[in-house]
This record gives sequence, structure tokens and C-alpha cells, in this order.
Amino acid sequence: MARVEIGQHLGMSPASVSDLTASLLDEGVLVTDETGDPTSGLIRGRPKVRLFFADTLGSVIGVWTGFNRVELRLVDSAGRNRASRHIERPLRNLGAEELMDVLAGTITTFAQDTGAPNVKAVGLACQGYVDTRDGIVAWSPVLGARDLPLASGLSQRLGKPVLIENDASAMAFAIAQRDPVLRSGRTACLMVGDGVGLGFLIEGELYRGARFGGSEFGHVRLRRSGPQCRCGGRGCIEAYLADYALHRDAQLIDHRPAPTVLIPSESAMTPIVEQARAGDATLMKLFHEAGEVLGDAASILIQTLEPDHIVICGPGTRAMDLLRPSFEAALESQTIPELKALATIRVVESSMDLLTEGVVMQALRELDFDLARLKAA
Amino acid sequence: MARVEIGQHLGMSPASVSDLTASLLDEGVLVTDETGDPTSGLIRGRPKVRLFFADTLGSVIGVWTGFNRVELRLVDSAGRNRASRHIERPLRNLGAEELMDVLAGTITTFAQDTGAPNVKAVGLACQGYVDTRDGIVAWSPVLGARDLPLASGLSQRLGKPVLIENDASAMAFAIAQRDPVLRSGRTACLMVGDGVGLGFLIEGELYRGARFGGSEFGHVRLRRSGPQCRCGGRGCIEAYLADYALHRDAQLIDHRPAPTVLIPSESAMTPIVEQARAGDATLMKLFHEAGEVLGDAASILIQTLEPDHIVICGPGTRAMDLLRPSFEAALESQTIPELKALATIRVVESSMDLLTEGVVMQALRELDFDLARLKAA
Amino acid sequence: MARVEIGQHLGMSPASVSDLTASLLDEGVLVTDETGDPTSGLIRGRPKVRLFFADTLGSVIGVWTGFNRVELRLVDSAGRNRASRHIERPLRNLGAEELMDVLAGTITTFAQDTGAPNVKAVGLACQGYVDTRDGIVAWSPVLGARDLPLASGLSQRLGKPVLIENDASAMAFAIAQRDPVLRSGRTACLMVGDGVGLGFLIEGELYRGARFGGSEFGHVRLRRSGPQCRCGGRGCIEAYLADYALHRDAQLIDHRPAPTVLIPSESAMTPIVEQARAGDATLMKLFHEAGEVLGDAASILIQTLEPDHIVICGPGTRAMDLLRPSFEAALESQTIPELKALATIRVVESSMDLLTEGVVMQALRELDFDLARLKAA
Amino acid sequence: MARVEIGQHLGMSPASVSDLTASLLDEGVLVTDETGDPTSGLIRGRPKVRLFFADTLGSVIGVWTGFNRVELRLVDSAGRNRASRHIERPLRNLGAEELMDVLAGTITTFAQDTGAPNVKAVGLACQGYVDTRDGIVAWSPVLGARDLPLASGLSQRLGKPVLIENDASAMAFAIAQRDPVLRSGRTACLMVGDGVGLGFLIEGELYRGARFGGSEFGHVRLRRSGPQCRCGGRGCIEAYLADYALHRDAQLIDHRPAPTVLIPSESAMTPIVEQARAGDATLMKLFHEAGEVLGDAASILIQTLEPDHIVICGPGTRAMDLLRPSFEAALESQTIPELKALATIRVVESSMDLLTEGVVMQALRELDFDLARLKAA
Repeated sequence: MARVEIGQHLGMSPASVSDLTASLLDEGVLVTDETGDPTSGLIRGRPKVRLFFADTLGSVIGVWTGFNRVELRLVDSAGRNRASRHIERPLRNLGAEELMDVLAGTITTFAQDTGAPNVKAVGLACQGYVDTRDGIVAWSPVLGARDLPLASGLSQRLGKPVLIENDASAMAFAIAQRDPVLRSGRTACLMVGDGVGLGFLIEGELYRGARFGGSEFGHVRLRRSGPQCRCGGRGCIEAYLADYALHRDAQLIDHRPAPTVLIPSESAMTPIVEQARAGDATLMKLFHEAGEVLGDAASILIQTLEPDHIVICGPGTRAMDLLRPSFEAALESQTIPELKALATIRVVESSMDLLTEGVVMQALRELDFDLARLKAA
Repeated sequence: MARVEIGQHLGMSPASVSDLTASLLDEGVLVTDETGDPTSGLIRGRPKVRLFFADTLGSVIGVWTGFNRVELRLVDSAGRNRASRHIERPLRNLGAEELMDVLAGTITTFAQDTGAPNVKAVGLACQGYVDTRDGIVAWSPVLGARDLPLASGLSQRLGKPVLIENDASAMAFAIAQRDPVLRSGRTACLMVGDGVGLGFLIEGELYRGARFGGSEFGHVRLRRSGPQCRCGGRGCIEAYLADYALHRDAQLIDHRPAPTVLIPSESAMTPIVEQARAGDATLMKLFHEAGEVLGDAASILIQTLEPDHIVICGPGTRAMDLLRPSFEAALESQTIPELKALATIRVVESSMDLLTEGVVMQALRELDFDLARLKAA
Repeated sequence: MARVEIGQHLGMSPASVSDLTASLLDEGVLVTDETGDPTSGLIRGRPKVRLFFADTLGSVIGVWTGFNRVELRLVDSAGRNRASRHIERPLRNLGAEELMDVLAGTITTFAQDTGAPNVKAVGLACQGYVDTRDGIVAWSPVLGARDLPLASGLSQRLGKPVLIENDASAMAFAIAQRDPVLRSGRTACLMVGDGVGLGFLIEGELYRGARFGGSEFGHVRLRRSGPQCRCGGRGCIEAYLADYALHRDAQLIDHRPAPTVLIPSESAMTPIVEQARAGDATLMKLFHEAGEVLGDAASILIQTLEPDHIVICGPGTRAMDLLRPSFEAALESQTIPELKALATIRVVESSMDLLTEGVVMQALRELDFDLARLKAA
Repeated sequence: MARVEIGQHLGMSPASVSDLTASLLDEGVLVTDETGDPTSGLIRGRPKVRLFFADTLGSVIGVWTGFNRVELRLVDSAGRNRASRHIERPLRNLGAEELMDVLAGTITTFAQDTGAPNVKAVGLACQGYVDTRDGIVAWSPVLGARDLPLASGLSQRLGKPVLIENDASAMAFAIAQRDPVLRSGRTACLMVGDGVGLGFLIEGELYRGARFGGSEFGHVRLRRSGPQCRCGGRGCIEAYLADYALHRDAQLIDHRPAPTVLIPSESAMTPIVEQARAGDATLMKLFHEAGEVLGDAASILIQTLEPDHIVICGPGTRAMDLLRPSFEAALESQTIPELKALATIRVVESSMDLLTEGVVMQALRELDFDLARLKAA
């Protein structure tokens, strides 16, 4: 974290920040970077001044919950990855209490197994519209419950502060922390994978809509009478682009086995991509169609928000070579050229790891601010 | 069969036909109806003169092959149903020879088990584009093979004449045999069930396109970027209306179990229809969408062919109450009213039984004509 | 007309036909061809035996009525063009009686001005659904009236037999007369120009739907929410492809002047085609879109009717070079390849002349049959 | 302007603001409201403290340029309307210099004719993507030029500061000034009229995309293969909803006369609305379709940005009664209910007057800030 940022957030003058950080360095709360390598396993970005929290201040657990999967990650206060875990577990049919019991149990077990030192906070990312102020999942395509008080429910069970966030927002945050260019102007991160989500940042801060939520751009109904989406609608962007959609359609084309769980795993997706890459004409059409939808989606973002940067990220980028021709053709044909020229488009290949990283970074930042506020008071 | 029809087909004057039938009655080939009830289990229509072939002249087996099912039916020469059988058996992944071996074996076993007396011919209906003159399946969504010489292959194996037909055409033929109104003018029968097919009759005779095939109307791509169809295309009429499509989409909505076979059985379809009927909003939308597609399909038929009659038939009519509101609205909004007024639309609730009945009727008719030609010569 | 045809139509044996034609040659009704050139201005096809009606037997007038145009043509009994005329005259706002008065007046003046010898009949082609048996225009996009008894109305005014026909059917008939290949099997002629129409022939005879009409295929609503069509619907095939549609859209793109009449003339269409051909990107898109719709339309015909031949004809073929790339891509992507392979597709560049030719040929044929029937009696 | 706002913008404490305003009141720069009626012709909102600039401090001219129209408005420093003018003048075909000459001349003449006292600034709103920092029109559907330095060009010609803004943004600003509720949270104003535009406010301030522009949401291509848009694309939101689109389609339906200028005037739109309201079925369909597109547009805004408020405004609201049924149905069917519930939707009937009001308010605010900065320094 750079002093400038601390100052901006706390409304302190640079001079006051300098006093504060000096005092924190004395106390061992902050340390300066000794390695000279800003990327060595650290996920807390590239600060303008190399100043880190000591790794003895405790740790944070980042969690992602999908339809039938949980991803966990343990990070120390210096931002170093300590452990991670992947669990397959159907969650959608659980009631609210049961769901929170399961998640709390999963997190506790993970903390115990990994000997997590002094867990300060938990950050949890999930699909759906998340009230980030009150910690409520207002709506989610992967949870049966509505208006689920997930943060307080987990916090009570775990005895720790819990921060929740939309998963695409968490990934967007992580991506922007890695590249200062993406923290200036407006950056729209389209995350493609289990579903399709949008994390939108204005000058590095996540855009918040009504009720402090993000965006459900993946459920924009791009094509009337399009394919069925798991949200109950038809023709949503993710009904073409998400892994479950590609797998469902591939199944019908060549009668491959159904996935044992509704959301196909990476190992179920790989052969589809490889067969298409090898020239299977009908599977190629799947990616052609998906690429076209991706292009139309980017076009809507450009003409609605005119962001400076569009980032395509998430596991779905694994097939970007197959998506690209129709993506570019659609973007070209559906966008006013003068507007298209104002946005850069980049692809960040990224797994779900980046997502838990993002939510951990957000949790760490909250802790930092709390600490700084405490010290500054 | 009425004398008028015989005359028309053989180019004989009514007088000559009378002579011929008199001689056939003498020989016991033809019998007059004694029951007075023209519909008692007889499938050979309502002749203008009650004149039947004797049931001692042998029998005919009707077969329908779907994606993973075979339906069989044994009918005697008087047109009476003697036996039927339903077999679940995946067929799509079989090679040409293996497929024909399996079908021949299935038919032989059925004939043996049912003690079929003197099988004169086999009629087989299947999905796809069928060269009815040369007995070749040019293309089928449910068979891997192309240009499959199914009639000759089965004929060699069974030692009987084999007639093959597109399944929607077979059902259309059966329906028209039951109602003389549908044998005048132009009648378009839309069969909805495992797939969607069109049987089109002009003055009671099946329309034949290039290479003596019928129509693949169910694969008209009604909606660009629509749902995936099993033919490899997108947005086909059947990708909304066929059982497999409805079941696939219902599965995503409420996570019901996948069918054990790709094409869902009647018992898998029933709960979807019942839940929608009970008011499940998202499932109702499925039928709303399907009904709209059905309306657009009927509208295309009207504005392309201006038939006198449109018949909606097949197992999919089980949900006609759910389809009707959006069907009618779509038909209304997509058709020039003056043209819509020229076609009557009726729904004939019908199971796959009617389909095997149709192909049996066609086979019987061929036998009749052969016999009549023989006698007339 | 070949003897074979006469025989087929009158149900006479070849021998009887020979007797008949010999007698007609004696009487001077028929003449043999002396020029040796079967195409020298004659429109009556290439008979298997060069046998013509004498040009002294009278003449026929062919008429085409569009939205704001009338085309007239005088042909003698030998099939030679004698005169033609083009008149611009708004017709749509006229009531039924007034419309028939105007048309009758126009035809009478034309006959007088051209010194038409002994006019035997008038053939009139128009857009819309035409009851060809009773001579009634059931519906037309270019006439305000419905169920207009046009044939009898004109016949009373002119004192001649009047035959009416849908214009695309008339052109299809003319095209099939020029090429025997198109008279075998099924031929679907898509006429593109003022509107889009379909003339469908089975073994050389025009297909007749309910009430003896043809097809209103041009008003198939191919794209929900597409551009406005003059029929009142949206997204009709002709709302992309017809001259008026292309001109309307070009006007919005580059602010060219509105046509003085609603349907643009050939001279209004030429610069649009030439500018697109010269590389104007937005105008090229117009033809790209139109070509795609044409491809989808051909695909529907293939999968519904599986014709042996698809003919694209009419003034709109002037831009076939611009339409072709997207036409072929759409046809390819929207059609099952095995079915596409069964139909040949050809383009017949053709002006409205071919259309009046077609309706004249139909009128002449009726006269021939009448004459032959008379003689044969 | 309320003291609170001044303080927020200048970074001054309430106490400092009080000092400042007291001093300005002494100098006669500010006056207190004597009428007690906050709405009597004043457009500067309803301040928390009734404090106004004196009307003797000069005036501001607000201008809107459309495709073929210019609207002008003179407002004094107290925010009172002094004069307005409507001019029909084709602008699109003018080159950059000529266009700016014409606009400068038009503004000068207006100022002279109305005896505008001491014009301090000019605010100009236009369609298109406007770089509001550098005063450049990057792209516009109604101007031939690209990257037009309109602000500096006019400023040089007029010798005054010129502020330019996208027209929908200007109207959104005006609407938000009238209602504090719309200045909290996120407010998306969809302006429907000559075109369709979006003004998006976050906490009362206009959202700025890349290059400090707004949004070209009206050109989101909602329907592939939809009607032609004047931007060169197809299926844009405004190609259904804008006045020119409705008029174009109505013309084809009932052959009403073409507008003398491309963009129809209010008096050309009125009969279309009234005829539809009186029950003309085809014209009703136009508004049905437009309403559906409006609903889909609102749905995209909700699922992309989740605003707290959606405001539908502009002259197109004249037909809101006709648009509403399909608008609501589309919004309902295309939006996740839980997300739809988070946004309020309201309709603000508004003419182009509100638009020039908006740009004047922005110009006045800039002047106020300048003045306040000056005083505060």
C-alpha cells in the first residue's frame, strides 16, 4: 500500500501519513521490502513506496463459492499465499442456515488443517448481487436463498469479521492491483468462467450500484429467444459463454457424457476446447457463437460506459484463440468506430486463484484501513 | 380401401374396378364388413364402400426408430392391431451394418414372440430425410450414418419387402386416412415430440421433394443465435419444441435429474408439464417460448404454402393447453390476417402409435396395389 | 407448344394429337417454323416440334401493376412482342371501381395506340394473393382493396377474357418455359424487385395453395423486431430485400433525396448499387444484410420444400454480386449440408419484362387449350 | 445554489461558506429570494437556503443543435428565462468551419435581437460523444465532421467562454437539479426524442467516460438485423424509438407525406400518436415495438449499472401511454426481479426546453464556481 493511497482514504495530508507510517515502522507493523522483487509471491500490488505489513500480524482467508465448488486460500498479513484448497460440494439446494453452517465448517477445517496463524478476517466472493455494505447476498443464480445475510451469519459462526463481494468484482480488484494503468480512468473487467460477471472500476475503486452491489451484466438478455440461462431467463450473455453453457451444447452435439456436477470442471472443459482447436466444425461453431456474444457484450459496455479499459479475464480465457475472430468481428460491426477507438481491450488469462486473491486483497485493505484509522485516531 | 381409390391409382374405369373386386370377393381376398362398425380396431380408414382385405392374407410390421428407442407394431391384412412393443436401445453410435443388424434382429424377435402370421412386409419410419423411392436415409439427426441404404439392407436381412418413410410423413398419412377432409386440398401436419417434423399432403398424397424425400421443416433455423439443436445448428424449431429441448431447459431451471437416455421418456416429460400447469412461473415460460415458436412455424407454413389445413400432432400435443396462448398470439402477429383466414388449424392429440400405424398403412397400401395390379394384369 | 404437351393437357394419345395438329396446319391455325431460329423474338419456348400458332389469330396483352406503375406488353398469337409501355401512376389509394376503370382505360388506350390486332385476351399480374380460379385479388400489399374481383371487373369493362396471376408466379412460369430442366421436379423461383415473391412449380405447373393462390413468401417474418414492411408487419423478407427497403435505408445513411414515388425507379436504384460497388462501407452493409436474408430465405425453402431448383430472379438480381458473399455464407450456416446439396441454385437476371411475358404465356396457353379443346370436340 | 453545495465544490467548511456568502450578499452579487415562490420562472433548483445570484450579473445563452434545428435560450444570472428561439436549418452537410460560422452567427443574431445584457457564457448541447474537458465533439450522428473543436471554435468567434455537452447529459443535469432525490445515488436518464441518449449521474454529478464524454447508449445495437439507424448501424435503440424512426415507419404503413426535413417536427409526430391512440392497429404496433425496446433498454441499464433511479424523459414521452404496456412487459420479462426491485422508474414529461435549461445550468454553475473561487482566493 502506497502512502498516497492511505492518505486519500483517510483524508490525511501526505505529511500526516509520513508521521503515521514512521511510527508503524517503529512498532514493526510495517516493514520495508528487502528482496527488491515486488512480485515474489506477494499479491498486494506494486506500491509507489515499498512498504509492507509484517507477516506476523495475522492472516486472512479468502473463499469463493460456486454452484458446487468452494475454493479457499490462506494469505498472511504480508500478502503471501500460505495454502489453498479446492472442494466439490453442491451448495444450491441448501437452506440459508445449513449453507452457512457448511461454509463455516469448511473454513474452520481449512484454518485448522493449514495451521492458519491468527486469522484476522475472512473474505468471501460469490456469484450474484451482493450488498457489500450490509454483507447480504441479495440474489444469486447459484443459491436458492434470497437476501441471505451471509457476512453476519458467517461472522457469528467464525467469530471473525467477514467481508463479502461479488466474484467478478473481486477479480477485477485483483487485476487492477497488479497494473496501475487499470486503476486510472474506468476499467470494465468481464470475467468469463462458471458464469459471466462484470467488475467495474472507476479510478481504481469498484463501482457500486443500488444497495452497494455491483453488476449482473452476465444476465443482460442479449438475444430474445436465445438459449436457456440458469437464472431462469433466456439469451443471457452467460447462456452462451459460461462453461456450463458451452458444455451443455457440446453434449448435445457429440453426446459426450453429462458432467457429474452441473458446473463442469476444468478437466471437462479441456477436451471441448481441444477438439474445437483440432478442427471439429460444430464445436468450432460453439466458440464462434460465444465469441460473437462476447463482442456484442463489449460493444454494449463501450457504448454505455465508454470505459478506458476493457479486460477479459477468468477461466473462459482458456479458449480466447477460438473466441477471438468472431469477438473482433462482432465488436467491429456493433460499435461506432470512433467510440471503439477510445477503449483498449486486453485479455488477462486468469484462473479462479486470482479471484480469491482479489477478495483477500479487499479484506486486507479493510484491515489496513482499520489499523491506520486506529493509529491515526 | 374404396373402389374409387383403387380405380384412381390403377387408371381403371369404375366398371373394371367392380369386376375386379367382385372376383377378389369370390376368391376370399376381399371381405365385406360384417360388424357395421368402421372404427373397431381397423386402421384402414373409412371406405366409401365397406370392403376389406381378409385377415388371412398375412400381416405387416410397422417400426419406428428414434434416437434411443424402437417402437414395433404388428397388423394383420385386415388392418387390425395384433401386438406392439417398446424397446429402449441407443442407436445413434452404431455403424451402418451394426445398426441394420440390430434392427433386423429386433424385428425378427418381435415377429417370433408375437407369432406373426406370414409377414408380408415391413414398414419403417425414422427421423430425417428419407429417399422413399430408393429406400435410403439421406440424412438423419439420430443416426450417425449418411446415405444409409436402410430399406435394401433390412430387406436382405429379413427376406421381405421393406418400405421406409420419414416419421412425420407417416403420421401425416395416418391422420389423413382418418379424415377425408384432410385428404382434399393441402394439409400440413406438424408433428411435435422427439423432434419436430412436417408431413405435407396434396390431395391426400405425400408431397415429395428432391430425391423423393419429405421435409426437414423442424430444422428451419427460426432464430439466429437460438438454443443449440441436436442437428448441430442453432435456433431450429425443434430446439425449442422437441421433448429433449424442453427437458434440457427444465433441467437447468430446477436442477431435476438428467434423463438416463438423451431423449426423455414420456414419464420424464409428464412432471414438467404438470409443474408448469400447476403454476411454476419459469417452467411456464418454457412453454410460452415453445408456443411462440410453434406459432411462427405455422405462420411460415401459411405464408409459404397456404395450406387448407394445418394439423398439430404428436406426443408434444400433451402440453397444447400450455402452448396455445403464445401460439395463437404469435400466429396472429406474424401472419397477414387475410392469409391466416384461409387455413384451418386443428390439433390431433396423438402418440407414437399413430406413427407406426401410418407406416403400416403405407405398406399395406403398397401391398394392395401390388395385389390389385397382379389381379388386373 | 409441343405435341407432347398438348396431349398431356388434353388427355389425348400422341396419335390423336397428330391428327389434330395436321388438321390445324391445314386450316392455317398452326404454322411450322421457317426461320430455323427458335429464339428470334419468340417467347413461347422451344418446342420439341417446331409448330407455332399463326400470328394472324389475334393478340394478347400482358399487364403488370405495381404500387405506382403499370407495365404493358402486346404479343401476337405467334408469341412475338409487338409493343410495350411503361406508365407511372399511383394506384394504391384508388377504390375498387376506380382502380378497375383506370386499368381498363390504360389497357384500351394502349391497344388503340399500338393498333393491337384482334385482342383475344388480357393477362394481368399483380403483387399479392391471387385467387387464380375466380380471378380475385384476395390481398395485396399495393392495393387498398381486399377480395377485389379484378378479372371479372376488367373483363366486363374490356369485353375480353382476363386472366390474373400473382406476379412472382407469372415470372416463374416464364422462366420455366425457357428451360425444360426447370419444368422437371420442383422449382422455387424467388423474385426480388419491387417486393419479394415466390413462384413455385411442381413438374412445370404452378403450385396452388388454398383458394387457388400462390405464396406470400416475401412476407414471411424472418426477423422478429426487424425493419418495418409495407404490409404492416416487421422483419419480412422483403423489408430487407425489396427495392423500396434498400432505398429507404440508403436514404437514412447518406441523406439522398426521397423518391418522388414510394417505390423507387430503376434509375433511383442504380446509384445505390454503384456506390456500394465502389466501396461505400455503409451501403455495402445494406447489401450484406440483404444477402444474409436471401440466404436464410433460400434455406427455409430448402428445408421446407426441398426443391430440385432454386432460381433467384427479378430486377433485384442487378446487385447479385453484392448480395452473393453473405447469401452464400448464410445459406451455408443455416442449412443442413446434406439437404443443401440436393438443390441447385441459379440466378436468372431478369427485368419486369419477363414478368409480363409470363402472364402473356399463361393467357396464350389458356387460349391454346381452349382452341384445342374446341377442335378436339 | 445552496451553501452546502458551494462548500462541497470548493472544499470549504460551512463556516467559511457563510462568511463568503455574507460578503457576496453585501456586494449585491447574491440576493435572497423575496417572492417566497421557489419555482416562479427560476431554473436554478430549490436551494436549501433561498439565496440567488442577482440578475444584474449578466446572462447566459443556452443552445441545442439537432440535425436540422437550433434551439436558443437566454437566461439571466438569477436563472430567469428571458427569451427563446426556434430555428430550422439543415446543419449536417456543413463543413466544420462553415458549421461554426453558422452557429456563431445564429447566436450573435439571437443575442442582438433579444438585447441580451452582458452575455457571460454560452452553453451548447448536441447529440453525440462530447469531450467535455476539451470542448470537442468526437463523434455525432447529426454532424458530418469528426473531432470537431466546437467549444474553442465558437469561443473564438463569439469572444465568450463556451461550454459544450452531450444533450442527454444536459437534460439529465436539469432534471436532477429539480429533485434532490435524483441527486443521491445513481440516476440514469433516458432521453427519447430526436434520438435516444443517456445522461448518467452518480451522486448528482455526470458520469464521464473515456475522454470525458458521456454515453452513446442510444446506439447500443439491441437487435441484430433490426431497422436501419442513422448512425449507419442496425437495430440501435433509437432506430425504434426516436421520432425519425417512428415517423419513417408510419410513413410506410399509411403513406403519409415525407417530412420536409429529415427529423420530423412535433407537428408531424402529433397525428401519428393521435391516430394510434384512436385505435389504428398498425400504428399501435409501432408503439408496442418501441415500448418493448424501451423496456429492454431499461433492463440493460438495471443489470449493468443497477441505478437507484431510471428517468425516462424527452419529447418522446408524449406517447408514454402507448409505450407503457409493452415497456413494462419487456422490463418484467428481461430483468431479474430482485434487481428490478432496486430501481425506481419515473417518467418526466419534458420538451427540448429542459435541455437548453440543462446546459444553461451547467454554464451558470461553472460561472458560479469561477466567481466563488475568485472570491474565496
